[in-house]
Amino acid sequence: MQEIKIIDNEKKKEVKLPENLVFGKTFTEHIFEMDFDRNKGGWQTPTIKRYENLNIDPAAMVFHYGQAIFEGMKAYKQVDGKIALFRPEKNIERLNRSARRLCIPEVEPELALKAIKELVKIDAEWIPEKPGHSLYIRPFIFATEPCFGVRAADSYKFIIILSPVGPYYPQGFKPVPIMATDKYVRAVRKGTGEAKAAGNYAAGLIAQEEAKKEGYSQILWLDAIEQKYIEEVGAMNIFIRFKDEVATPALSGSILPGITRMSVIELLKDWGYNINERLIAIEELFNAADKGELLEIFGSGTAAVISSVSKLKYHDREIKFSETEPGELAFKLYDELTGLQYGKIEDRFGWITIVE
Amino acid sequence: MQEIKIIDNEKKKEVKLPENLVFGKTFTEHIFEMDFDRNKGGWQTPTIKRYENLNIDPAAMVFHYGQAIFEGMKAYKQVDGKIALFRPEKNIERLNRSARRLCIPEVEPELALKAIKELVKIDAEWIPEKPGHSLYIRPFIFATEPCFGVRAADSYKFIIILSPVGPYYPQGFKPVPIMATDKYVRAVRKGTGEAKAAGNYAAGLIAQEEAKKEGYSQILWLDAIEQKYIEEVGAMNIFIRFKDEVATPALSGSILPGITRMSVIELLKDWGYNINERLIAIEELFNAADKGELLEIFGSGTAAVISSVSKLKYHDREIKFSETEPGELAFKLYDELTGLQYGKIEDRFGWITIVE
Repeated sequence: MQEIKIIDNEKKKEVKLPENLVFGKTFTEHIFEMDFDRNKGGWQTPTIKRYENLNIDPAAMVFHYGQAIFEGMKAYKQVDGKIALFRPEKNIERLNRSARRLCIPEVEPELALKAIKELVKIDAEWIPEKPGHSLYIRPFIFATEPCFGVRAADSYKFIIILSPVGPYYPQGFKPVPIMATDKYVRAVRKGTGEAKAAGNYAAGLIAQEEAKKEGYSQILWLDAIEQKYIEEVGAMNIFIRFKDEVATPALSGSILPGITRMSVIELLKDWGYNINERLIAIEELFNAADKGELLEIFGSGTAAVISSVSKLKYHDREIKFSETEPGELAFKLYDELTGLQYGKIEDRFGWITIVE
Repeated sequence: MQEIKIIDNEKKKEVKLPENLVFGKTFTEHIFEMDFDRNKGGWQTPTIKRYENLNIDPAAMVFHYGQAIFEGMKAYKQVDGKIALFRPEKNIERLNRSARRLCIPEVEPELALKAIKELVKIDAEWIPEKPGHSLYIRPFIFATEPCFGVRAADSYKFIIILSPVGPYYPQGFKPVPIMATDKYVRAVRKGTGEAKAAGNYAAGLIAQEEAKKEGYSQILWLDAIEQKYIEEVGAMNIFIRFKDEVATPALSGSILPGITRMSVIELLKDWGYNINERLIAIEELFNAADKGELLEIFGSGTAAVISSVSKLKYHDREIKFSETEPGELAFKLYDELTGLQYGKIEDRFGWITIVE
């Protein structure tokens, strides 16, 4: 593994976190950057340097053909003062899976993990310590070669930047209203939906904007083929708690395989729940709700951890839960996951990596 | 309409075009750039300045969520020395349709056209004069706001860059081998397939790379739902000449509405061909070929104008045409379209805009 060259780790900026941290608007002082050049034999020197603007050719292929992938993870200040990462190796595995789908060169997993740890250590003062706060870590790779030919680029940048964040939903752990749509689709199997590809997110914005106008915070996407089965909520995976079962959509090829999703499934199994990954028709939710057998709906994701759903709208029907109180299981999962992340609960699954 | 501010139109670089122009690797001396800032009331001063690297925040949303669209068009040096654009208003209309789908602010069409004309005039010496050569024009818009929130950005750049180009296929007007696939999909109706969104192109690279390994230059995409109907060839739309009909896939919501496609349809109608936009099953091509009723296949697009297909592979079957001679209708269309573009044929449809 290559040594990381530290060009500048000096602290010049006074760490002054805003009282109310808006998600992803504040960035720390340093950045990890590594260039790939196919003509120079691949990945070049990994470096940590001051956070500053990039100098990029306007013909760089990322602006034209969207060859870009990313990851999202967090560093937590634990109750004993240690800095923890949550299953970072899973994010790095997924980064490389996304890379393969988008014809982007993979990164050495050990180097990526070391880069994350080194960068977090240098900017450790930026980790907020308030409850529900953390340091969001954004590794991403994009094509830099200036060329209009439609093909995989010959040069890339792998960058990691950090952003101190408060809770994803400014209203805190308050249930969120979501809306299903059959007007737009996010992804289709055999496409890029299971990769964390930049273009997937741009594709969903229009539906999200229309939902916002109607007073809903997120879109619940349906499968692209039959427009019948629920898939995910763009920023999170979705779980349905029926009377005798917890269900989440099976990974069909168009759904992002969330790390929090995986952890929720493992936790529920550990707790003895009847948890199934399967096809879930949107109709099934309304039918179960009519019979009083739909107990709660919640989402899982790195940004929000667990979000309880207050209501789900589809066409002219709506399923309503409490608008103020999160669902019982959502709350229990949130408590457990954040307990593990902040070191309040023993790490019995080996999910925590301490940044020494 | 705002005046375009010309910061620098000085000619410093000696125009030296490489003997063999590789598509999209050479760029001219100037660039058009206009910033959008929602908090400053929208689009700012349109400017033409020296081509140089952009200075962009690594948190700019284009790198993370792929909010980026583009257009492709060309300026031709006509036989009488005039500079011509081919239906530029159609590209600008499509740019704004793409913008609406991706929640990107639209640009004033008159201003966009003026920007293209001004920039082409300033860098007119870069238009190559060899047959089949032209100045490729690339208008594009992308999100620049540094933010990790998944929403439409508040700031953007609209840029136009120019690239002198030779024929898209280095082998000239030689038929190209293409391969259909059901292993990957490019786009699905209600998604972004009919927009010229950056992410669509990254999504298709893997299939294209696999095709290249098997000796095919392009992928023929099938519809995402039934994987039964032909859609487009990524860099071009597709036309099938049957015995008594010319057919092209109808715009189903996942197909790019090509300007050359539209022009080919209009030309064929004008010439009295039986041209239909309809569903075309891949099976139909093999059945027609077996009966000797499939006369030729060709693609249409700005980059290559018309490309004749030498063979089409799907699974273990293959339809073969001449590997050296383009199809008769493909050649006639190429001749007519380039004749109009280079001013050898009278512009009877009003498709040509002269850059005065």
